[in-house]
Amino acid sequence: MEVEEVVSLPRLSRVAVCGGTHGNELSGVYLVRELLKAQKEEEEEGDQPMSVLMVLSNPRAMLQCRRYIDTDLNRCFTHAILNGPLSDMAPYEMIRSRELNAMLGPKGSPEAMDFVCDLHNTTANMGLCLIAYSDCDWICLHIFKHLQRQMPDVPVRYIHFDVSHKESYSLDSVGKHGFAIEIGPQPHGVVRSNVYTAMKLGVQHMLDWIRFFNSGATIEGGFVEVYTMVKHIDYPRDKDTHHITAAIHPQLQDRDFCLLHPEDPLFQTFSGETLRYKGSEPLYPFFINECAYYEKGIALSLARKKCVKIPAIRVQTDEEQQANPQGYESEDED
Amino acid sequence: MEVEEVVSLPRLSRVAVCGGTHGNELSGVYLVRELLKAQKEEEEEGDQPMSVLMVLSNPRAMLQCRRYIDTDLNRCFTHAILNGPLSDMAPYEMIRSRELNAMLGPKGSPEAMDFVCDLHNTTANMGLCLIAYSDCDWICLHIFKHLQRQMPDVPVRYIHFDVSHKESYSLDSVGKHGFAIEIGPQPHGVVRSNVYTAMKLGVQHMLDWIRFFNSGATIEGGFVEVYTMVKHIDYPRDKDTHHITAAIHPQLQDRDFCLLHPEDPLFQTFSGETLRYKGSEPLYPFFINECAYYEKGIALSLARKKCVKIPAIRVQTDEEQQANPQGYESEDED
Repeated sequence: MEVEEVVSLPRLSRVAVCGGTHGNELSGVYLVRELLKAQKEEEEEGDQPMSVLMVLSNPRAMLQCRRYIDTDLNRCFTHAILNGPLSDMAPYEMIRSRELNAMLGPKGSPEAMDFVCDLHNTTANMGLCLIAYSDCDWICLHIFKHLQRQMPDVPVRYIHFDVSHKESYSLDSVGKHGFAIEIGPQPHGVVRSNVYTAMKLGVQHMLDWIRFFNSGATIEGGFVEVYTMVKHIDYPRDKDTHHITAAIHPQLQDRDFCLLHPEDPLFQTFSGETLRYKGSEPLYPFFINECAYYEKGIALSLARKKCVKIPAIRVQTDEEQQANPQGYESEDED
Repeated sequence: MEVEEVVSLPRLSRVAVCGGTHGNELSGVYLVRELLKAQKEEEEEGDQPMSVLMVLSNPRAMLQCRRYIDTDLNRCFTHAILNGPLSDMAPYEMIRSRELNAMLGPKGSPEAMDFVCDLHNTTANMGLCLIAYSDCDWICLHIFKHLQRQMPDVPVRYIHFDVSHKESYSLDSVGKHGFAIEIGPQPHGVVRSNVYTAMKLGVQHMLDWIRFFNSGATIEGGFVEVYTMVKHIDYPRDKDTHHITAAIHPQLQDRDFCLLHPEDPLFQTFSGETLRYKGSEPLYPFFINECAYYEKGIALSLARKKCVKIPAIRVQTDEEQQANPQGYESEDED
């Protein structure tokens, strides 16, 4: 009989939950405000609060209920942007990303948060997705497995963007571990009670799991499905005006994570014509008709699905922790 | 046997269809662009185009994919705003409303368009609604009846805002007759193919009806249901911050035009509490959770439903037209 190896990992002592990174994605804005209020009441009651830092990431954009003021904050956390020269004329979000990096990072350093969760909404029918840069971060994948089990009424999926740590661009990349929680469909600028509640539950289960992990329990391994992003597809556009000339086909709209086969309908032009998927490989569509991606030239993204085996894990003992005091694996400079 | 009276009404010679009055309501933006393209092709082919003026109302807001630049254009067509003094510092939309009034009006004058249709989207689950200031404009109500019959797959409703002609504020009020076509649910900044197609069909059937009316046919009367707006309800808000403290209750969300009874759930607070409708009269909710109305302090609107008898109508003969050359009923100054 094979004995399952148990991987020991550093304690997750310092956790951050961020909302309002995009100022018009309201579930995270109202959830972080609610959690801040609850945390304040707990402190007043003298209870020992967990070390969870709640952050409203882009207060200026929130005030205007816009995605961003000058540029997309959630693309401003690359190594180059965080460490490059900063002019007096820098966009607001480039200044704000450094403030957040000082608060939650510095990215890639031993001082960085152990875990950063950033809350987002999408107009796509994606249910609850965890979006991360790794398909072998056992912490992220164990939390994913936990959420799937605890939230049977909500489709929970894991999306992997295969980008290096240095080039990773989103707020959650500042932590040693982390992901974005993306929930939809919800129009930007709107809060839907069911979406808010799903996000609240997801965050509660995530924090419960982290507490359980820190308690020293051995958490059994298993298998999970991971969607790895392969490519983006843009809308058909007019050559001169660059205006889109078609919308997502009604047979594709809202069918995120339903396998798209070659020759399936992809777009319907504004004059009524059907355009078909010309790829050679069936792939899983997601972020179908996400509002904020019109300007990025993305009508939908396509992913390949795979099964990943995750090991049993437990928190490191004090002795193990002392042997690896950084609490994170250092990266080779390239 | 009672003989039905046939009401004769002036010809509808000059019609305008407007989109992009709110720059992020995309069905109208793309439909007007498409109709402009089709009109251009017809002209090139030498066909006689119908006298339909296609207008993109707020091009600057469209460019930024925002509702407006400085202020809501669709509140800038009151008598007072159109005719008051205009400072150098006037909001862009107050300048633009005068340009549109010169193009389509002047409002209240014999030179005004015979019919103005303004295209809108909502995040509320309202299907296709005609929104007008009159419950006895036989042209509008006949078009409504026609759309209901021609579009059995789409819920088509008529909403009446009981506001005087002078105080009417929206672009469609510039025409002698007119309404807004409001279709949802669709997130602002997004185009959904089914919503675009419903709007395209609605506009086609509307123009078909106008052509038929102008041809001299007698159009039989009948009965229609009209929803008259009674009041708006705001979100519960924090006294200090003015932030909303609850979302539309999941049992009310998406249930536009389903009768709301006293004590029915209205809101769910962000801490999970249910707040109930405290009115004394059952009313019909609409514009439930419309994105753009958070800033206006409207979580939903409530209407009373009534049945309206509409007479048979036909276009005026040349002799009748000469007897009433203005082609519209003059209003008393108050």
